[in-house]
Amino acid sequence: MTVRIAVLGASGYTGADLVRLALEHAEVEIVALSANAKAGQRIADVWPHFAMFPDLPRLVRAEDVDFAGLDVVFGCLPHAASAALLRDVRGPRIVDLSADFRLRNAAVYADWYGGVHPAPELLAGAVYGLTEFARAALPAARLVACPGCYPTAVLLGLLPLLQARLIAPERITVNALSGVSGAGRGLKEANLFAEVAEGVAPYAVGRHRHMPEIEQELGMAAGLPVTVSFTPHLVPMNRGELVTMIVETAAPLAALRTCLAERYVIEPFVHLLPDGVAPGTRMVRGSNHAVVNVFADRVPGRAIVVVAIDNLVKGSSGQALQNMNVMLGLPETAGLRQAPLFP
Amino acid sequence: MTVRIAVLGASGYTGADLVRLALEHAEVEIVALSANAKAGQRIADVWPHFAMFPDLPRLVRAEDVDFAGLDVVFGCLPHAASAALLRDVRGPRIVDLSADFRLRNAAVYADWYGGVHPAPELLAGAVYGLTEFARAALPAARLVACPGCYPTAVLLGLLPLLQARLIAPERITVNALSGVSGAGRGLKEANLFAEVAEGVAPYAVGRHRHMPEIEQELGMAAGLPVTVSFTPHLVPMNRGELVTMIVETAAPLAALRTCLAERYVIEPFVHLLPDGVAPGTRMVRGSNHAVVNVFADRVPGRAIVVVAIDNLVKGSSGQALQNMNVMLGLPETAGLRQAPLFP
Amino acid sequence: MTVRIAVLGASGYTGADLVRLALEHAEVEIVALSANAKAGQRIADVWPHFAMFPDLPRLVRAEDVDFAGLDVVFGCLPHAASAALLRDVRGPRIVDLSADFRLRNAAVYADWYGGVHPAPELLAGAVYGLTEFARAALPAARLVACPGCYPTAVLLGLLPLLQARLIAPERITVNALSGVSGAGRGLKEANLFAEVAEGVAPYAVGRHRHMPEIEQELGMAAGLPVTVSFTPHLVPMNRGELVTMIVETAAPLAALRTCLAERYVIEPFVHLLPDGVAPGTRMVRGSNHAVVNVFADRVPGRAIVVVAIDNLVKGSSGQALQNMNVMLGLPETAGLRQAPLFP
Amino acid sequence: MTVRIAVLGASGYTGADLVRLALEHAEVEIVALSANAKAGQRIADVWPHFAMFPDLPRLVRAEDVDFAGLDVVFGCLPHAASAALLRDVRGPRIVDLSADFRLRNAAVYADWYGGVHPAPELLAGAVYGLTEFARAALPAARLVACPGCYPTAVLLGLLPLLQARLIAPERITVNALSGVSGAGRGLKEANLFAEVAEGVAPYAVGRHRHMPEIEQELGMAAGLPVTVSFTPHLVPMNRGELVTMIVETAAPLAALRTCLAERYVIEPFVHLLPDGVAPGTRMVRGSNHAVVNVFADRVPGRAIVVVAIDNLVKGSSGQALQNMNVMLGLPETAGLRQAPLFP
Repeated sequence: MTVRIAVLGASGYTGADLVRLALEHAEVEIVALSANAKAGQRIADVWPHFAMFPDLPRLVRAEDVDFAGLDVVFGCLPHAASAALLRDVRGPRIVDLSADFRLRNAAVYADWYGGVHPAPELLAGAVYGLTEFARAALPAARLVACPGCYPTAVLLGLLPLLQARLIAPERITVNALSGVSGAGRGLKEANLFAEVAEGVAPYAVGRHRHMPEIEQELGMAAGLPVTVSFTPHLVPMNRGELVTMIVETAAPLAALRTCLAERYVIEPFVHLLPDGVAPGTRMVRGSNHAVVNVFADRVPGRAIVVVAIDNLVKGSSGQALQNMNVMLGLPETAGLRQAPLFP
Repeated sequence: MTVRIAVLGASGYTGADLVRLALEHAEVEIVALSANAKAGQRIADVWPHFAMFPDLPRLVRAEDVDFAGLDVVFGCLPHAASAALLRDVRGPRIVDLSADFRLRNAAVYADWYGGVHPAPELLAGAVYGLTEFARAALPAARLVACPGCYPTAVLLGLLPLLQARLIAPERITVNALSGVSGAGRGLKEANLFAEVAEGVAPYAVGRHRHMPEIEQELGMAAGLPVTVSFTPHLVPMNRGELVTMIVETAAPLAALRTCLAERYVIEPFVHLLPDGVAPGTRMVRGSNHAVVNVFADRVPGRAIVVVAIDNLVKGSSGQALQNMNVMLGLPETAGLRQAPLFP
Repeated sequence: MTVRIAVLGASGYTGADLVRLALEHAEVEIVALSANAKAGQRIADVWPHFAMFPDLPRLVRAEDVDFAGLDVVFGCLPHAASAALLRDVRGPRIVDLSADFRLRNAAVYADWYGGVHPAPELLAGAVYGLTEFARAALPAARLVACPGCYPTAVLLGLLPLLQARLIAPERITVNALSGVSGAGRGLKEANLFAEVAEGVAPYAVGRHRHMPEIEQELGMAAGLPVTVSFTPHLVPMNRGELVTMIVETAAPLAALRTCLAERYVIEPFVHLLPDGVAPGTRMVRGSNHAVVNVFADRVPGRAIVVVAIDNLVKGSSGQALQNMNVMLGLPETAGLRQAPLFP
Repeated sequence: MTVRIAVLGASGYTGADLVRLALEHAEVEIVALSANAKAGQRIADVWPHFAMFPDLPRLVRAEDVDFAGLDVVFGCLPHAASAALLRDVRGPRIVDLSADFRLRNAAVYADWYGGVHPAPELLAGAVYGLTEFARAALPAARLVACPGCYPTAVLLGLLPLLQARLIAPERITVNALSGVSGAGRGLKEANLFAEVAEGVAPYAVGRHRHMPEIEQELGMAAGLPVTVSFTPHLVPMNRGELVTMIVETAAPLAALRTCLAERYVIEPFVHLLPDGVAPGTRMVRGSNHAVVNVFADRVPGRAIVVVAIDNLVKGSSGQALQNMNVMLGLPETAGLRQAPLFP
């Protein structure tokens, strides 16, 4: 079986990491790569680390992609641009990595993303692709919305506990740390090396766009509206994402551990660490794995849940490929078996 | 006026930074530097960045320091070792940077630091040297305990709000990020470059030694026992410390800002940033300054307080020198006027 | 076909990276992992990034490895210790990553490594495993000495030019830059994060142990003794190695490029970059690839050859696996097809 | 005495570091700061690390600076723009940090900087401000051209040896490493954090603009034309510059050391390290100091000279202030006495 794919937006970090992983997937053939601003260039001009893959297709404009012969299209475009383009794609199934199809409510989208949704008619049919919690819906999906990187980490840590009613849906506090690739490859002074290195700071305090997505999914699990405190920080590293979450619970630590252990024992990519071992991003770098743990807090009635992922892999391109595998009935780990890179 | 000082433990990062700052203090004469394991070496052998200061004294063993002719002794030794040594020092006034004299209760010390306190008789007389809140007591102090780096950042952000009863003493959540120098210069695998770079992780989850110190001081401000959620993380940078704190409050953001503004407008080293500007460690690197801000949270009844300091300066050696200045009636900013180093 | 292997010294960075790559090699079964100081521990205790591979064998002492049932033993031990142990191994073929079997002359070894060679009788039969230049000898080899990381980069850049008599064997200047993993996982103050980050310095100026190895191999290619200027520097990054070499030549740039192009066009892991594109370590991170280029110098009669590799992969564990593949008649790229990781 | 200064181009890294140092100079009053693209903003909006200096003047357009009342103008503008503006400044003395007045020959400038020199009539009168070698000319200078960062490091290492005829002016090889701040604050993809971190590469191989400047000054010292091999590399650190230079010499190491020792013993900012100690950028970070050493090479007739500076201080703004001090008869170290910042 050969799956013919296109990657739209191949000049961004998520697009590039999707190409990297697809190259390791025996069933995938990369048929087209688009990048409007760099159309006509070879991929190695844009991504020197692909210099040794001369057979990769040249970059083209998205409108020049022949969608007819494709099986799957991966959208790695900015929000709004993604929906505007994908709306008219016929034929291939779509795995979108933008924010455009994550929120079920177009009005919430408009509030947070600053504009009318380009294709609200597609929202109802989109599957929210947190793979471990979407397996039933993926095989029939025509359009999959991959979760944001922060929501992926948060939800992997909290969904089982919330579904089991072991933690309260109120007063959830999420502290999040991200590597700089999460900010994208766009030219912003704030992302220059000398601005970021040797320092750390929060950003978007009190108003980050991943909040409504987190709250939508936690709310569905809890069966009532959820509002979280969420504070992301930029950390001087390329990759990696870590969330440290304070939750209220009446359950003992052992019950929380058992819940997570039972939920994840069968999962190839989500791992509960041994008691007391703190998740770190170095444990998952470059891989599709997530590591999870839960700790007692000194404040009675509180627990601390920690999750680490690679923001570009499980938080983005790896999960996209994992979703494609499930959609197509391929082995879920195909193309994703590489071990983390350390150091 | 010349202040004759000794630095005990000059081979650690806090000792070295104290020397750096003392070199810029016109009234200070560095008379003795101790480092037992490296006694006999020149300071430039231990700290190559002091190669251009050939007049600095050679390292000696602490017991070989002649305390008689000194005005002030700075203790930059590990906990327990510090109290054991300083207990018998007569003559000079003492500014201690270890944990030994921070906790007022020797039993609490024993719980957290794993041993009987070496000099419990000194605890009652020690002044807790968070300078901005200790000015009345410092001039008469014989022994000053400099706060830990995390407590310094936490207390600068919360004490004014707690004293004004604007925030609740319950359910305080502190998320803390520290540069690697905070882990000291000891040989631990976990602190090797290749273990730390390109990654981030929490450590001492639920049980960090700075907790009882934070709780002691917040409890005194609140007038009742306080327990906090505190989770520190190691960030791949040399210096810098940032705390992001979720607090419960019935007050509007403006009231919180006004409280902090009024408290700190006169302070040379603590600065409330403009509305909406997030504190970052790059704003204070190498300097004794702290930057503070408060934000509304989306969760009603919560606010987010953020503080950034340089862990080795305001969080350690700079504050020690600031304390010395106040103790001796010198200008508080003497030796501490250098601007932050960026980039 | 299944190749049963052991990795001796699995608690060091090269050992760990060999395990990572072996996990991606469909024909390899990891039967034993040794680490004397950490014997008895699970691999995930020593390498948290292997937490998701619970089936990896526990660490044992090297003397407890049952060599009888093995096909290949990889030695990732320190020099001297490696030869002392491997000397007595019977049965499996040996791929050694230490310095012990690289130098053909035991007296030179003694000069540079400070001791009598533990097994000089093995030197004559050892194959110097710079794979691209050792293919004829590898299939019959019982003992392969993998080149040092610096020699690998230097030789890939210079051997074809020297063999073609296009550059002079005199006055070769090598400037080398290495990531910190090259210094190993041993506890040295110089390798602590805070000592290394935000700085750069040369080390072992004029006397690095990779010199005699470089000179031996260049000398064999030139047919006369060669002495090089070689200055390595430690760079604040985990992985990667870059050599910038000034050579004397009477040939035009085009001739140098043609020589390298023709030599490497068939190689799966060595790539001449387009004219004017500078090799960088980010192009090869985590992969077994090497990127090479040559530039005209403004000084007439000189050219600049630049090579980048990942010190732990092509400079160490990847090349070891590549050698094993050739020894056993497996596809040379088996287990080594993953694309570089960027960013 | 108060020296009234303006800094033109205060939104770049060199401009900011000049402000930092000027703040520590008791005799300097910062009267005006220009930054055309950010005119009207407060300095703290552009440089958050100056948040604690509210009295600094607001940024204005360069043409709105009132030059009449100034004593010294520092030009931190891009090349060509600098000369075009400074050409018409009357009144204050000028210390320029751009490349515009470093090359004595306008034709060479046109070759390397791609355009007709905007003010060739000023070249003859400009003093090349490598302070240690320009003290005689500085007091009378109206226009001082501060050397480039690379030339500063190269010349400090080689000028004394060349003037003493201890090294040959032929076959000088310079390998240079620079922190990323040297690339400026402009928005270029190549300078984004995720492009630079965890990697190293050479740039401008064979054709960097600092070459003609190095050759001009070495040529003047040698009394004949000099051409050097010069290869700069970008290193993932904010600050710091290191040059490793291979030179040909008939002199023994001791003679080279004696030459440097005698030349620099009286210098406050240039330090010959003890025999065998390698210069590193961490020894000088944030300071105006340079550290120098020379080593024997294994290749007979060669020596290795290594110099480390902070590219933004001795390589730029610090040296500019040092020049101002000498021009005005102030103590040469005024404003520049701070010790290096480590870690």
